[in-house]
Amino acid sequence: MRRIFALSFVSLALFGAEPADWIVSAHWVLTMDRDRRVLEDGAVAIRGARILAVGSRSQIEASYRGRKLHRANSLLAPGLVNTHTHVPMSLMRGLADDRRLREWLEDYIFPAEARNVDAEFVRWGTRLACLEMMLGGTTTFAEMYYFEDVIAEATREAGLRGVLGETIIGFPAPDFKTPEAALAFNEEFIRRYRNDPWIVPAVAPHSHETTPEAAYRAARSLANRYGVPLMTHLAETRQGREEALKRYGMSPVRLLDAWGVFQGRTLAAHVVWVDEEDLAILQRRGVGIAHCPSSNAKLASGVAPVTRMLALGLAVGLGTDGPAGSNNDFNLFEEMDLAAKLQKVTTGDPQALSARQALEMATILGARALGLEDRIGSLEPGKYADLIAVRLDRAHAVPLYDLYSQMVYALKASDVTDVMVHGRWLVRDGRPLTLDARRILSKAEEYGRRVRASLAQR
Amino acid sequence: MRRIFALSFVSLALFGAEPADWIVSAHWVLTMDRDRRVLEDGAVAIRGARILAVGSRSQIEASYRGRKLHRANSLLAPGLVNTHTHVPMSLMRGLADDRRLREWLEDYIFPAEARNVDAEFVRWGTRLACLEMMLGGTTTFAEMYYFEDVIAEATREAGLRGVLGETIIGFPAPDFKTPEAALAFNEEFIRRYRNDPWIVPAVAPHSHETTPEAAYRAARSLANRYGVPLMTHLAETRQGREEALKRYGMSPVRLLDAWGVFQGRTLAAHVVWVDEEDLAILQRRGVGIAHCPSSNAKLASGVAPVTRMLALGLAVGLGTDGPAGSNNDFNLFEEMDLAAKLQKVTTGDPQALSARQALEMATILGARALGLEDRIGSLEPGKYADLIAVRLDRAHAVPLYDLYSQMVYALKASDVTDVMVHGRWLVRDGRPLTLDARRILSKAEEYGRRVRASLAQR
Repeated sequence: MRRIFALSFVSLALFGAEPADWIVSAHWVLTMDRDRRVLEDGAVAIRGARILAVGSRSQIEASYRGRKLHRANSLLAPGLVNTHTHVPMSLMRGLADDRRLREWLEDYIFPAEARNVDAEFVRWGTRLACLEMMLGGTTTFAEMYYFEDVIAEATREAGLRGVLGETIIGFPAPDFKTPEAALAFNEEFIRRYRNDPWIVPAVAPHSHETTPEAAYRAARSLANRYGVPLMTHLAETRQGREEALKRYGMSPVRLLDAWGVFQGRTLAAHVVWVDEEDLAILQRRGVGIAHCPSSNAKLASGVAPVTRMLALGLAVGLGTDGPAGSNNDFNLFEEMDLAAKLQKVTTGDPQALSARQALEMATILGARALGLEDRIGSLEPGKYADLIAVRLDRAHAVPLYDLYSQMVYALKASDVTDVMVHGRWLVRDGRPLTLDARRILSKAEEYGRRVRASLAQR
Repeated sequence: MRRIFALSFVSLALFGAEPADWIVSAHWVLTMDRDRRVLEDGAVAIRGARILAVGSRSQIEASYRGRKLHRANSLLAPGLVNTHTHVPMSLMRGLADDRRLREWLEDYIFPAEARNVDAEFVRWGTRLACLEMMLGGTTTFAEMYYFEDVIAEATREAGLRGVLGETIIGFPAPDFKTPEAALAFNEEFIRRYRNDPWIVPAVAPHSHETTPEAAYRAARSLANRYGVPLMTHLAETRQGREEALKRYGMSPVRLLDAWGVFQGRTLAAHVVWVDEEDLAILQRRGVGIAHCPSSNAKLASGVAPVTRMLALGLAVGLGTDGPAGSNNDFNLFEEMDLAAKLQKVTTGDPQALSARQALEMATILGARALGLEDRIGSLEPGKYADLIAVRLDRAHAVPLYDLYSQMVYALKASDVTDVMVHGRWLVRDGRPLTLDARRILSKAEEYGRRVRASLAQR
């Protein structure tokens, strides 16, 4: 009698439990939701591409049935968002460091690109970057380079999420020789991907120094015609600001505003050399910011006024920039750490840019900067299931007093063990499931030899 | 006939080869010797605690016979040198981040230390720090805290090399209540360890803000009596400089110089707030500098003028500082990267502090700052066999264009696979051989709970 009762109770519970594809649980869950809930012994239920529910493990396990992954000594967090990259440049990682911008560009990057960059280079470079990004917990990246259709294919193959924009630039690029040709290609690209759940097509005029007004205006109009974002470099260097003031009598921000560039969803990368009036324009236009601390420090561009931007309510995400000179990897753990430290040391205030704010920038604020905060950036019901598990049991991360602090200042990309994007596991136990790491590394070494040889023949 | 000839050739070769305990070889060897030789397919022969020879793999294997470790896809480098730490504070890792110095000290660190720090705390904290340091390629560290005899025991047990100085401070510390008592203990400590090959005993007056002149003078005299180094904090904060100017009419550097502190081998940590006259004094006195980029940035202390110091020929090493607030880990890969980036962005020159200089600071210059450059800091015959192997085949470190650049900007502490100190393997294939990692992590978590509970009872 007792047994029958118990059985029927179990079947009732099972009958009452909603089906889920996965129940992922861990010691801690950093939701990054509106209330920034941190759950001890928390869990996330997932069906298809989306999150069904987030709550205590016991509650989720009582309400949902599905396959389980439990990480007893880890935290779960939303997948990290890299708001500014040039992923195929992974194949030129550290090609010419510690050099002045002009020498770096003219003696290394431009010749290396002219002699090496083609569709296959871009494909393998994107694969290498995707491999590194997924292993380090990045699930979404915003990217501008050349051959964006190939980048989209490789990104889909990896299973990552990408906001991808063909670079529109006023001189001959490896794929298109004029801005018009690039824009025509870009329109095709947008039409192909505008309903893709993983790829957000974008339009990416390069910068006011390199892209003429007409191309900027055409880019904005193309982006608005299809409701896609525009991405651009903005106010990266002091020299760029001075040139704009001299040539146009306006700061770069005021110049692009005068050109109508911010009349629609915009993501601006760097934004170092800005004054209060510039910031007010960016705030009014709702421009998202891709803050790139490593790149701005390494190229000696300066330190963006992130503390002020956040106080103004701007959506500031983190970007690695490309790994050939401006950075050397796609590591958002390092960018979080550096963003916080740079703000503290430049403002003289150790409370500036807290660990929690740094993690917000790498997740929900980055998502907002990309216009994707309704879909990604936090662990909340209805959002895409983009999440990471990070182990907490290594010598550099014990003991644990504060989860945000540990995440930003102590944990490393190499502590990421599991990565899910769109409900699909890309990394489990530190091993990539969608990419052939060995083949990619060997191809990358081959390209390394090729690039070196191409620069030797001068 | 041919066979006999071949055999006798082999035995001749074996007969001619000198015995070695280990022949360690790898794709690349960064020697950091006087000529900064970089060897492709290089090897290091080791006998006992010392390096016998460094050269091409074929040459070393022809000249020496011994056990072999070959790392086909790695680089070998000298073990890294951490010139400023407080290792037992590992148990307070990230206890109170993003706070103002006074709040951090008075509301968290001082009460946590008063209620928790005893010999066993120090022992387990040192073990945890040694575990993290060895896994990340650090082979020597300079340290000042309390219970230095316990730190020495735990360091010897781990097999690391330590320059260890009992803190001499003008208020009651967890072990000694007066500077005099600490100095008396320190003398015993020096006598016990002065001939130890792993431990260099030192004397460590805390800082001009906390340690009276008499204690500084006694510390210097004690250090000179035994020929050991003196370590101290120096010119870390703007406030400290202003206080010295107001109270003594002198900068901190001039003050300590007036107190005779630099009349003997000295290592000064931080050295942020200095002018040209201060730097000239440090140069004239041959004071070694422990530059702590993470700590100085995170606490918003400022950025030390490292580029200028190096130009003056000062011996500037890298330090992590303690991991409770000023930093969160003991990661010299991150300090190298940050040191370079901070100099570039503050000087406005992307050529400032190159990758090679950053690695010099973490190896040979750090050794020189500690007065140990005749024993460690480079791979050279006659020096102690302190070396690390770092794998080059991870997605974040492929392809390879420049070894220094890769080491500083792309490789991570987690890429270290093998660590030897004094001819003894401490880490092989990423696994610690001298410490019980599981037990240490579990003890550290226990101490974490205890420290949290002690702060809750206010």
